[in-house]
Amino acid sequence: MRGVVLYGAGDVRVEEREVPGIVAPTDAILRVVASCICGSDLWPYRGADAVGAPTPMGHEYVGVVEEVGAEVRTVKPGAFVVGSFFASDNTCEICHAGYQTHCVRREAAASTGAQAEFLRVPLADGTLVATPGLPDADLIPSLLAASDVLGTGWFAAVAAEAGPGKTVAVVGDGAVGLLGVLAARQLGAERVIAMSRHADRQALAREFGATDIVTERGDAGVARIKELTGGLGAHSTIEAVGTQESMMQAIRATRPGGHVGYVGVSHDVTLPGLDLFFSGVHLHGGPAPVRRFLPDLIERIWNRTIDPGKVFDLTLPLGRAAEGYRAMDDRSAVKVLLLP
Amino acid sequence: MRGVVLYGAGDVRVEEREVPGIVAPTDAILRVVASCICGSDLWPYRGADAVGAPTPMGHEYVGVVEEVGAEVRTVKPGAFVVGSFFASDNTCEICHAGYQTHCVRREAAASTGAQAEFLRVPLADGTLVATPGLPDADLIPSLLAASDVLGTGWFAAVAAEAGPGKTVAVVGDGAVGLLGVLAARQLGAERVIAMSRHADRQALAREFGATDIVTERGDAGVARIKELTGGLGAHSTIEAVGTQESMMQAIRATRPGGHVGYVGVSHDVTLPGLDLFFSGVHLHGGPAPVRRFLPDLIERIWNRTIDPGKVFDLTLPLGRAAEGYRAMDDRSAVKVLLLP
Repeated sequence: MRGVVLYGAGDVRVEEREVPGIVAPTDAILRVVASCICGSDLWPYRGADAVGAPTPMGHEYVGVVEEVGAEVRTVKPGAFVVGSFFASDNTCEICHAGYQTHCVRREAAASTGAQAEFLRVPLADGTLVATPGLPDADLIPSLLAASDVLGTGWFAAVAAEAGPGKTVAVVGDGAVGLLGVLAARQLGAERVIAMSRHADRQALAREFGATDIVTERGDAGVARIKELTGGLGAHSTIEAVGTQESMMQAIRATRPGGHVGYVGVSHDVTLPGLDLFFSGVHLHGGPAPVRRFLPDLIERIWNRTIDPGKVFDLTLPLGRAAEGYRAMDDRSAVKVLLLP
Repeated sequence: MRGVVLYGAGDVRVEEREVPGIVAPTDAILRVVASCICGSDLWPYRGADAVGAPTPMGHEYVGVVEEVGAEVRTVKPGAFVVGSFFASDNTCEICHAGYQTHCVRREAAASTGAQAEFLRVPLADGTLVATPGLPDADLIPSLLAASDVLGTGWFAAVAAEAGPGKTVAVVGDGAVGLLGVLAARQLGAERVIAMSRHADRQALAREFGATDIVTERGDAGVARIKELTGGLGAHSTIEAVGTQESMMQAIRATRPGGHVGYVGVSHDVTLPGLDLFFSGVHLHGGPAPVRRFLPDLIERIWNRTIDPGKVFDLTLPLGRAAEGYRAMDDRSAVKVLLLP
């Protein structure tokens, strides 16, 4: 099969690789229908994370089950499924509490690489969720979004306690931030303030339900959020970047007693204790337990209540993956979908 | 009147000072019935916080209202009252959300110093809570504890979401940590693990409802908490110290999806972003909005449901305040009550 392999910073290759097979009896093998490139894939692509050995890439996927291991009970060959980037048993105490990304048996769900024609997914029964049937083609981008970027934005909105009567600020206008806007509105937020200085992303934020756009950043951005909230700050802030500046911006844009939901992987972030202490905010985040939200998200997509697939503004055949990485890197694309 | 003044590190003096008078029409003047020394008073006492000018000390108090300003409506002369260390209007949006320590009009409640015979309290109606009548003498230590150390431990337990079915770990065996134990049990926690290596504090923790004692610290302490919780960590952890070690111990002792309530003033703390991100915990804390809890705490004390006054293990006349500071500093006393 063909699959994307990262050899080093900027060096993306599509190669002929071995089709993965069942290793553990709880595995499933999927024929990948669509995968995509994640903002987090850019860290090693940019050399910010070291690339030791050639690495199969991709952890977002939808596909059709080809084969299951002997202990797989609920996932059936032929089913169309959506999974998360961490495999989980969905039966342990941590999973039951809704934190499947921290499952006691968790492991990478796509170690064989989802940007490929086939994928091995461990702990299939706990990780994969089947759709009600084979989806119409136009639903596939949205179902793929549920696999990570929508589930992550959704978790951020839940962690920020977005809901009725709330004003939600969103730091970050990447795919996760934009879908955080969508999630906040779906959860009933009264007002959603998207922070963005790019016209195309602003337009998508509005389409997803943003009521206000703030173009300022840093101190000026915080001041603007305060102006829009009677001097108090947002009730809820979604942080979807993962830098020191964005984290501090999120904390400072939030009123005392408010909630910051952060899902940007916190590279090089250190939070100053006294600033955090006196902010009085709630802070919650981390790797999103997408599995918790998948049944609900699939239903909203299936019913055509939401259309998160709009974040994909470039679709390429797998063979042109390198082009997709470049487009994400230079921000000419928000999110790139790859078709095997 | 006599009052405690800190002149510099280790230099506590009891001096003749002017009786405070009404400054703003929302002020009240109290005759202080009891005050005490706070762990946070030790920061300037130890020279860890600079002492610029001679500083009137103390911010925990119960007393009888002597006089009120022209705009004070609900607080009446002659009433016995408990107040918090921050004055709040208790009417703004932030107060209504329960975050009175961040009130838009907040100011220090005891800038004239509560370790004194009289005290001026601003925003009296929003800050002070009257007891149902004049308290019996044996209730005074407990009512005084409600003013800060109980209110703070209670907030930590609430921030940590202590409740039925939960296992709560408590980092810190000072007065706040010990009262965090009491709060966690009152809130219905099934199991409360106190971290302490001092026999007298362990005994008080048990009296307040601790079910387990862990004497290990740092990595070994975290390992022991995990051992006691099926390898997962506590559902809820109260952090009542405010050092880098104690914060990291609290975060690492908590299971993913669990809650850390931190109330130790975070001196010299910097939280590493990736550690926090991958911990998956909820983090909430800061200066405790004691005012939120005062009516409930006063009722529990008045009904003799709780006896938080037990944290005071040394009572001194105001004139011997310096002795009290020494005893808190060398940890020979948990908490020192001062009688004017």
